[in-house]
Amino acid sequence: MEERHATEPVFVLVTPQLGENIGAAARAMWNFGLSRLRLVAPRDGWPSPEAGATASGARAVLDRVGVFPDTGAALADLSHVFACTARPRELTRPVLTPEAAMAEARTLTGQGARVGILFGPERAGLINDDVARAQAIVSVPVNPAFPSLNLAQCVGLLAYEWGRQGSAQPALAMSWGSTEAAQGAEVDSLAARLERELEPAGYFWPEDKAEGMRRNLRAMLARFGLTRADVQTLHGVVRALVRDKPRGGPRGRAR
Amino acid sequence: MEERHATEPVFVLVTPQLGENIGAAARAMWNFGLSRLRLVAPRDGWPSPEAGATASGARAVLDRVGVFPDTGAALADLSHVFACTARPRELTRPVLTPEAAMAEARTLTGQGARVGILFGPERAGLINDDVARAQAIVSVPVNPAFPSLNLAQCVGLLAYEWGRQGSAQPALAMSWGSTEAAQGAEVDSLAARLERELEPAGYFWPEDKAEGMRRNLRAMLARFGLTRADVQTLHGVVRALVRDKPRGGPRGRAR
Repeated sequence: MEERHATEPVFVLVTPQLGENIGAAARAMWNFGLSRLRLVAPRDGWPSPEAGATASGARAVLDRVGVFPDTGAALADLSHVFACTARPRELTRPVLTPEAAMAEARTLTGQGARVGILFGPERAGLINDDVARAQAIVSVPVNPAFPSLNLAQCVGLLAYEWGRQGSAQPALAMSWGSTEAAQGAEVDSLAARLERELEPAGYFWPEDKAEGMRRNLRAMLARFGLTRADVQTLHGVVRALVRDKPRGGPRGRAR
Repeated sequence: MEERHATEPVFVLVTPQLGENIGAAARAMWNFGLSRLRLVAPRDGWPSPEAGATASGARAVLDRVGVFPDTGAALADLSHVFACTARPRELTRPVLTPEAAMAEARTLTGQGARVGILFGPERAGLINDDVARAQAIVSVPVNPAFPSLNLAQCVGLLAYEWGRQGSAQPALAMSWGSTEAAQGAEVDSLAARLERELEPAGYFWPEDKAEGMRRNLRAMLARFGLTRADVQTLHGVVRALVRDKPRGGPRGRAR
């Protein structure tokens, strides 16, 4: 079944030790729409109950997993392989960021190429012979003081980069909730109400600053991006604040 | 101690359930150089042996963790808060990708602002009252068919975006291993050797294609990015292939 998705990269985990990590890797892949997972000689055999438990809603990925006796067999039908490794290697290879690697993977799969991303086992990482099978190295820009990435985290970052680059989600969008934005006249009317209440309280003082203070107040209300409900709320707030307060005559700062 | 790192965002986990996830979150943060973690009412109390075990080399992050009774207390000294949530909300807020959110966080912390990233508990995610405390929402571009991100994975993605945007790692660099790149004359000499051996074998045939075939061969060798050791290896390969072979007279295709 796996072979239906020729436009996706295949993620290959070499001798993973913990079923939990295999499950977490499958879950992270499927979070970003990737479903082609291969295992090379998983330490505790296959299938794995722990993997199934950790995969949560991504069990379909595990059901289609390909299991291979060695790395060569797992990569046999792939034309372009990227090896994830943190350690510097005695190998001559281009070294890409996850971002650049997944951009390249998108280009290649778009041209019909069969792309693989190779991940080493927990703790030890990929052996040199496996890295040597790859045409390029992926190096995650980690804290040099603590470069050891959890296997599923590393899979998740690569899957995220794949998904991010194919996503149509805008960098910044507004969510307006279910309420309507207030119209200009409604905000103006709220501002006028505020000024009317603040005037007798002596807020606009000293007089040579009063015009600037009024302008600031209106600019602030405009900046809030008020909804119609907000405007009603603020009218209520102002009403409650001034209730039973004696009118007329300067107060506040002017006292 | 936490307060020394004013130029880092604070990651706030609201009522996390599993110590393992707190530890994995700390590890993922420290992988990308982040160390300011706060917990709001962790379900199983604090400290957590499970968190320590999962944090691996990032225990220093756990040692400095701040624990707060409620979300308000955890955010009290922060000026800008981003809430990570997958579900659409009945709230009026800007919605950012992780990339845009962390770019914004870098700008803000660079200006001395105190920035927080808010994460909800496993399964349920953030409640509306907590999201309402944030000025902006972060939405990871997930597979709509399976949007449920593991807590530590979500923390890891945000930490990765922080680290990626501050990283000086070039998108693509070459690793040349420890051997020296071959010089032009060495590659030329290998090409000449090859041609010399291929000529009597009738490889450059038909004659009107011969010039193009020679050019292709040299272009291919140049593309390989050969090291000096590669050149020696290939000389040996050619030598071995032609050993004890009768010389002279067309062979191969010409037979």
